[in-house]
Amino acid sequence: MPKFTKKRSLKTGLPPGSLVHIGQYDNKNTMIEVFDYDLNTFTQYKYTENAIEKFELLPPVGEKQVRWINVDGLNNMDIIERICKSHHIHALVMEDVLNTSQRPKIENYDDYIYLVAKMVYFEQETMVDEQLSIILGKGYVISFGEREGDVFNQIRDRIRKNGIHLRGNGADYLAYSLLDAIVDGYFGVLEKLGDKIDDVEEQLLNHPSVEGLHKMRELKKDLLYMHRSVWPLREVTSWMERSESELIESTTQIYIRDIYDHIIQTIDTTETFRELLSGLMDIYLSSISNKMNEIMKFLTIISTIFIPLTFVVGLYGMNFKYMPELEWHYGYGAVIVAMALIAIAMVMFFKRRKWF
Amino acid sequence: MPKFTKKRSLKTGLPPGSLVHIGQYDNKNTMIEVFDYDLNTFTQYKYTENAIEKFELLPPVGEKQVRWINVDGLNNMDIIERICKSHHIHALVMEDVLNTSQRPKIENYDDYIYLVAKMVYFEQETMVDEQLSIILGKGYVISFGEREGDVFNQIRDRIRKNGIHLRGNGADYLAYSLLDAIVDGYFGVLEKLGDKIDDVEEQLLNHPSVEGLHKMRELKKDLLYMHRSVWPLREVTSWMERSESELIESTTQIYIRDIYDHIIQTIDTTETFRELLSGLMDIYLSSISNKMNEIMKFLTIISTIFIPLTFVVGLYGMNFKYMPELEWHYGYGAVIVAMALIAIAMVMFFKRRKWF
Amino acid sequence: MPKFTKKRSLKTGLPPGSLVHIGQYDNKNTMIEVFDYDLNTFTQYKYTENAIEKFELLPPVGEKQVRWINVDGLNNMDIIERICKSHHIHALVMEDVLNTSQRPKIENYDDYIYLVAKMVYFEQETMVDEQLSIILGKGYVISFGEREGDVFNQIRDRIRKNGIHLRGNGADYLAYSLLDAIVDGYFGVLEKLGDKIDDVEEQLLNHPSVEGLHKMRELKKDLLYMHRSVWPLREVTSWMERSESELIESTTQIYIRDIYDHIIQTIDTTETFRELLSGLMDIYLSSISNKMNEIMKFLTIISTIFIPLTFVVGLYGMNFKYMPELEWHYGYGAVIVAMALIAIAMVMFFKRRKWF
Amino acid sequence: MPKFTKKRSLKTGLPPGSLVHIGQYDNKNTMIEVFDYDLNTFTQYKYTENAIEKFELLPPVGEKQVRWINVDGLNNMDIIERICKSHHIHALVMEDVLNTSQRPKIENYDDYIYLVAKMVYFEQETMVDEQLSIILGKGYVISFGEREGDVFNQIRDRIRKNGIHLRGNGADYLAYSLLDAIVDGYFGVLEKLGDKIDDVEEQLLNHPSVEGLHKMRELKKDLLYMHRSVWPLREVTSWMERSESELIESTTQIYIRDIYDHIIQTIDTTETFRELLSGLMDIYLSSISNKMNEIMKFLTIISTIFIPLTFVVGLYGMNFKYMPELEWHYGYGAVIVAMALIAIAMVMFFKRRKWF
Amino acid sequence: MPKFTKKRSLKTGLPPGSLVHIGQYDNKNTMIEVFDYDLNTFTQYKYTENAIEKFELLPPVGEKQVRWINVDGLNNMDIIERICKSHHIHALVMEDVLNTSQRPKIENYDDYIYLVAKMVYFEQETMVDEQLSIILGKGYVISFGEREGDVFNQIRDRIRKNGIHLRGNGADYLAYSLLDAIVDGYFGVLEKLGDKIDDVEEQLLNHPSVEGLHKMRELKKDLLYMHRSVWPLREVTSWMERSESELIESTTQIYIRDIYDHIIQTIDTTETFRELLSGLMDIYLSSISNKMNEIMKFLTIISTIFIPLTFVVGLYGMNFKYMPELEWHYGYGAVIVAMALIAIAMVMFFKRRKWF
Repeated sequence: MPKFTKKRSLKTGLPPGSLVHIGQYDNKNTMIEVFDYDLNTFTQYKYTENAIEKFELLPPVGEKQVRWINVDGLNNMDIIERICKSHHIHALVMEDVLNTSQRPKIENYDDYIYLVAKMVYFEQETMVDEQLSIILGKGYVISFGEREGDVFNQIRDRIRKNGIHLRGNGADYLAYSLLDAIVDGYFGVLEKLGDKIDDVEEQLLNHPSVEGLHKMRELKKDLLYMHRSVWPLREVTSWMERSESELIESTTQIYIRDIYDHIIQTIDTTETFRELLSGLMDIYLSSISNKMNEIMKFLTIISTIFIPLTFVVGLYGMNFKYMPELEWHYGYGAVIVAMALIAIAMVMFFKRRKWF
Repeated sequence: MPKFTKKRSLKTGLPPGSLVHIGQYDNKNTMIEVFDYDLNTFTQYKYTENAIEKFELLPPVGEKQVRWINVDGLNNMDIIERICKSHHIHALVMEDVLNTSQRPKIENYDDYIYLVAKMVYFEQETMVDEQLSIILGKGYVISFGEREGDVFNQIRDRIRKNGIHLRGNGADYLAYSLLDAIVDGYFGVLEKLGDKIDDVEEQLLNHPSVEGLHKMRELKKDLLYMHRSVWPLREVTSWMERSESELIESTTQIYIRDIYDHIIQTIDTTETFRELLSGLMDIYLSSISNKMNEIMKFLTIISTIFIPLTFVVGLYGMNFKYMPELEWHYGYGAVIVAMALIAIAMVMFFKRRKWF
Repeated sequence: MPKFTKKRSLKTGLPPGSLVHIGQYDNKNTMIEVFDYDLNTFTQYKYTENAIEKFELLPPVGEKQVRWINVDGLNNMDIIERICKSHHIHALVMEDVLNTSQRPKIENYDDYIYLVAKMVYFEQETMVDEQLSIILGKGYVISFGEREGDVFNQIRDRIRKNGIHLRGNGADYLAYSLLDAIVDGYFGVLEKLGDKIDDVEEQLLNHPSVEGLHKMRELKKDLLYMHRSVWPLREVTSWMERSESELIESTTQIYIRDIYDHIIQTIDTTETFRELLSGLMDIYLSSISNKMNEIMKFLTIISTIFIPLTFVVGLYGMNFKYMPELEWHYGYGAVIVAMALIAIAMVMFFKRRKWF
Repeated sequence: MPKFTKKRSLKTGLPPGSLVHIGQYDNKNTMIEVFDYDLNTFTQYKYTENAIEKFELLPPVGEKQVRWINVDGLNNMDIIERICKSHHIHALVMEDVLNTSQRPKIENYDDYIYLVAKMVYFEQETMVDEQLSIILGKGYVISFGEREGDVFNQIRDRIRKNGIHLRGNGADYLAYSLLDAIVDGYFGVLEKLGDKIDDVEEQLLNHPSVEGLHKMRELKKDLLYMHRSVWPLREVTSWMERSESELIESTTQIYIRDIYDHIIQTIDTTETFRELLSGLMDIYLSSISNKMNEIMKFLTIISTIFIPLTFVVGLYGMNFKYMPELEWHYGYGAVIVAMALIAIAMVMFFKRRKWF
Repeated sequence: MPKFTKKRSLKTGLPPGSLVHIGQYDNKNTMIEVFDYDLNTFTQYKYTENAIEKFELLPPVGEKQVRWINVDGLNNMDIIERICKSHHIHALVMEDVLNTSQRPKIENYDDYIYLVAKMVYFEQETMVDEQLSIILGKGYVISFGEREGDVFNQIRDRIRKNGIHLRGNGADYLAYSLLDAIVDGYFGVLEKLGDKIDDVEEQLLNHPSVEGLHKMRELKKDLLYMHRSVWPLREVTSWMERSESELIESTTQIYIRDIYDHIIQTIDTTETFRELLSGLMDIYLSSISNKMNEIMKFLTIISTIFIPLTFVVGLYGMNFKYMPELEWHYGYGAVIVAMALIAIAMVMFFKRRKWF
């Protein structure tokens, strides 16, 4: 599960606009990919950490072309600052790009729109997250990820393979596609979480254990995190859908409504899962209670049958000189029979009370 | 209970508008029924899977007539695509028709309105659901169900039997009738759920058992599902009632207000049932506690009566050479009397504490 | 407690506007009362079941007069249909009048306003409800109740006795008076519920028992029902107060604001009662826990005092040939003293732990 | 704690506007005080129950003067009716003044504003309440309290002592001052409640007892009552602050914003207290559980140490003819040693499990 | 944890605008610092308690310069009154500055804006708070803190060191910077709280104890306090961002939106922490239950194995004259074997039930 607080406090006391990288990943290999395309042409550039200064030599984008600059890794603050400054991005945006403890949000700076979202996925049974910043300007999209991933591979492919939708539309459609890829990823996470909840439910019902409890708590935290990542996107996409910004065309807004729907669905399912989980705690507690009851019942039955019998045998173990029963020839037999009758009576009493 | 997540992830990575069927039913027998009607005339066509290509030969609908195309089964993507394309339906709508993990919603595409709802019913004590897509256009309604059902039989009958209301009104009234049939079905489901809750309540109060707990959990999930299916319809119908779309006439909007009322009622009852259920957990836990108390009381009474007595008989079972009481002629009798007095005192003590 | 679901499903599959009576009361004796009045004149007609066809002969209402038609009993669908049709009431309204599973609501049909409310009262310690439909038109009010009651007796009296307020105002004031009578009834119900909650609280605190738990659950359901009946009235009266319909005059709206206040008060008190009740469950559970604790403490004290002593007497009951203590003259006395000391030590230990 | 329902049902069936006193206080000594003042002049009149008819002789108020009529006691309906009628107050307002089960509210009758608030204070450790009605008209304020109190003494003093603020402003400032005095009283009540909660918390943590539970429940009810009294005032003052009524001047509205702030603070603190209290229940339950655990642990330790030992001594108390150990010279000693070893092993086992 | 109620009641009965210091800190050393600056010039004045009257001699601020008056300590009411009066601050504002039980809020007095916020920080593992009042006027900012702190040191530095952003902007940017410093402080507090919650969680899971419970309750209170301090700031900053007041320029509003984001993040995290904490209680209770179960199981196993055996040895300890088994040569051995078999059977029974 991702941490709920990142080391934001590093920044305490710094003036606004100070560039400090706050994040969980220490990715030394910043990589920049640039795609310039329109319906007919397409060029791709790639700069890795050790040749990153060559980025300066990037030729200007063609007229009517869309440029997508994708940056993976936030440790090289210098290059990020240069990219932002060349596009006249506000210092506060640069600051937010580097600070990965952002809440998903959208901000309209008239010339460009700044958007933050969280990618969530499972890595070896553990939920991890990654912050993605998207800057949508006139004819360009800049995206900043925390590490090299393959979420956008399919978009890269569609650009390369002359995907008519993608290449035929503007930068807003590209931004939409990036967001769509992120939101699509949520469904996989939810399915995984659904399966895990089913597993835990079965485990808690059949073998209530502390281990199951831990898993439950882990899941609860995952869902909380999921909720925090997805909930604000509702507002983000709702704004985009209704926005009158020139940067988003109305044909694209139909697609954004689609994302909006997916987000509502994700939120819905997250809520449902949280309700299911919270009900599990009750199940667990009552399973424990039941088990305790069973143990107590067993103890009570054994004890209450034998305690009176033990008294009886103790009685005839007394050493009084004058105890007539001891002298009787059938005394012993009579006592055995009496005790058997007591035991049978007890058992029948329990039966009637349905304790068996 | 229907699953909360369907295999949405099949679509991850595909471009928007990709047609993939996501659903629980693998219905190989797609069936298309077409009704063309106005107040005076009425024609019906039917195409089954093995002659589905004949659908192409469907004659054009008469002027002033309403055409209803009802498709049962979503596996034949080809035919669905052809139907949609011939009515100029947006690719995103086609995608949503095939994806049965939709949340109920309404979307206005100006030329037509796209509406998704969930049918819910019981099949052998298990709740099942089915997604229904309705496309309301100018003079036509297209409906897509997941499998052949009889929910709309009564509407088919009303068309055939010259139902003056249905045949005398436009396509919007037909769409309303379909939605009404779905919402009507909810009442039956709620009555069934109400009966089941009463059963579980009685069972948990009289014979608290883990089995009852399982039933309770099952019911809780059913209600959650019900809630998820009905709640969004509130917005859907509210939009239809207030809409200024040309496709919905104001005379029909009075009827839609009626559906809206039914939906509010359904939501209300669902909420009430959820409250009743959540109260049951408390009842169950306190029933268990009570039972435990009773067992403990019994153990305590038996133990505390006999433990002192057992001590006494042990006392006179000691083998000390010099124990004067052992020599007394009435020692044994005196001990018996003393023990009886102790037992009586104990019983009275318990009585006073109301432990019996 | 009234049932939360009525047999709505009877109607499944019927076309909208179908007249089916859905209700709990099987009142064969429909009764119609008609009052025609203005400030100076007043006429009353009464038709019982066996002479109901005479209703057709009812003379037309005088100009400037207000006519109140009160129908008790919903089983004679025929007469209800005739009344409605003669006032040009929409088929959906007729349907709703007969269907007593309505949620309180108000509907504006321009020519008339249709209003549904629920009367709630106690009959021999059991809460019962009755649906009341009011149709307020120009110069007339039609009210439909499920059975003959005396809630409106006082209004009948005020009409007869020349109540200047009632007779001097229009039909809207009459409709207000009917609604006011219903809402006034809620206060009595709330007082009764308040007393019952106090009773249950006392009982659960002093003698926690399953019976008290049942009562609590019954009360909880009553409050849920109360909530469902009253909550929607808030919207109803709020609409009436702000309405610009010609049918409601502004002088009457001041009175409706008064009802609105009463409804808010009723809702408030209902919520307060629900909070009090939900707190009771905790009280009950902790009372049970306390009792269990007390029992356990008792068992523990008795057991832990006597178990070591029983061990000691068992020790000297062993039959070893060579056990020097057994031969001592004061052996027995010493053991008795030792055991007394052990018992005293134990008791003091418990005292120090405040277990007594 | 004040009662949540007052005998409202006394009024059931009466026509609206009927004057019935509904209240907890049976104050036979109605008292009327009148203050006429402006910046320079000031007159005070006082009428007690036995000379109340002299109120009729009250001279008219001077032009530009503010008149404050303060009535303590609501049993003399006759005089209240006369006061209201002489100021043309609506019958519904008179009814509300007498009915002390009102919810705090404000009503604008154009010529005057009617305002209800609840005073809350502690009387010998018990929370009591009193309803206060304020009618603010042009140049006059009429206030009705349930009994003679000293909450307004300080305002009386400020009028007498030529308080420049109070005497220099209009009737609206006087009404504000009355409301301010009431709201100020809430802070004292909250401090008291805060102290009580701290006391109960300490008591429940250190000596969990049923008595503490009762106190907790009492506090919970007090807070519920507080909430009910204060919450609606939010709306009341918010309305006054934004109102465009001629009766409230904009200079006074700045002061009303101040009251609004205080009310928000009161609501906030009430909510905080309720959260603290609800957390206490958990603390209490876990304290009980802990205690139970401790008792059980003790019982278990004592039992499991002595039960095997008792078995051993019973073993050698058997009377078999042939039991070789009994004949051994060191048999007794060996058994003692063996039992000591068993006991030590048990104790170490418990130590390892951290049961001590 | 800060107290939820401060001694507000000191003021009960005083007229509005009365200056009374209500606060937890008794800071006798009031200190005033004044900064006059523009982009090029900068002057600083400092007045300590024993020379505070010299403040009167403060030269007027230069045209186009911004003046920041920072007051630490609220005990010297005289000087505070003088500062406020010289800037024509409303009496209610002065009152609020001195009353440290304020809820964060913003008030627009046209000529100036009054803003209250709460600083929160940890002092030796205890959360403390301090109220900060900011008055933003035309060309000046006055800030009042409760005690001398170093939160603003960094802002002082930026003024001194010719921070181009700060010195180049107006008074609104200074006010923003102060607020930003406060909000930045919240992140540190949240990180600390997050660590503490993790600690408590680990402790409660591994060694459930009352001490952990206390810590949990302390944390809960801290979070409640945090919530109360931060939540109202949302409204405050939202107002500032959208305000059309002349005092706040639109370039500054972009920065305020940044603060708004931080506040939302803080609220989010606080809520998340509260959910995590509330889940912990369940964990704790089930840990206790588990432990109890384990103890009970142990007791039951030991008891139920030895109770029957003890009965058996008691049986052969009876002193009947005629007990044939006692005479058998192998009687003793046979009994030993029988008892061993009973014990083994019992153990196997427990194994099968998975009680080991």
